[in-house]
Amino acid sequence: MNEVLELTRVKECSGEYVLAIHDTMNVINGKWKLPIMGSLLYGKKRFKELEREIPGITPRMLSKQLKDLELNSIVKRTVYNTTPVTVEYELTPSGKEFRSVLDVMVEWGMQHRKRVLKKIR
Amino acid sequence: MNEVLELTRVKECSGEYVLAIHDTMNVINGKWKLPIMGSLLYGKKRFKELEREIPGITPRMLSKQLKDLELNSIVKRTVYNTTPVTVEYELTPSGKEFRSVLDVMVEWGMQHRKRVLKKIR
Repeated sequence: MNEVLELTRVKECSGEYVLAIHDTMNVINGKWKLPIMGSLLYGKKRFKELEREIPGITPRMLSKQLKDLELNSIVKRTVYNTTPVTVEYELTPSGKEFRSVLDVMVEWGMQHRKRVLKKIR
Repeated sequence: MNEVLELTRVKECSGEYVLAIHDTMNVINGKWKLPIMGSLLYGKKRFKELEREIPGITPRMLSKQLKDLELNSIVKRTVYNTTPVTVEYELTPSGKEFRSVLDVMVEWGMQHRKRVLKKIR
């Protein structure tokens, strides 16, 4: 294959572009992060509320995933000085804007499903 | 396992929205599918070309991933009756349209990175 073309492709495919996709994949990879973010799109939640809304998640896994999301600046954790202490989780601005990624994923997923089903019938 | 069957099974237990995200995640999950699709966005490729363009992938893994993508109607495999036989891989219309998902992922990833770096400095 043409060496120059090869170089161009690699150039276009690397650096910022790959990095950005990598960052995004980091957020959505795995089984739990998307459901958690999906649940928080509807507003602030306490730990117990999240646990109830995400079927099958264990408290330990939920705690781990929330910590990951907090470290990644996707989720903000706020502790209120009540008795007993109240802890709330909410999406950061980055987390809220992730909605745009989800929307395109939904759109593509639906189109793709239609195409696949048309082929099978 | 048959990926199409997998699609049907999920349909029974969730709404269209979750389903569509699930379908999309199915395509991008894992280490190799995005690099393969990224490479095919630049045009048809033979097996050996793909192998060269995706650093670190083994022939066995590439073959498995291409079969998955073919089953999912993301990649089309064409055999030409030459001597020796030529096999080419290209994106289907669904595969090409996946570009829109990638673009939003890149956009979000870049914005997110900027925000995180601003916070750290």
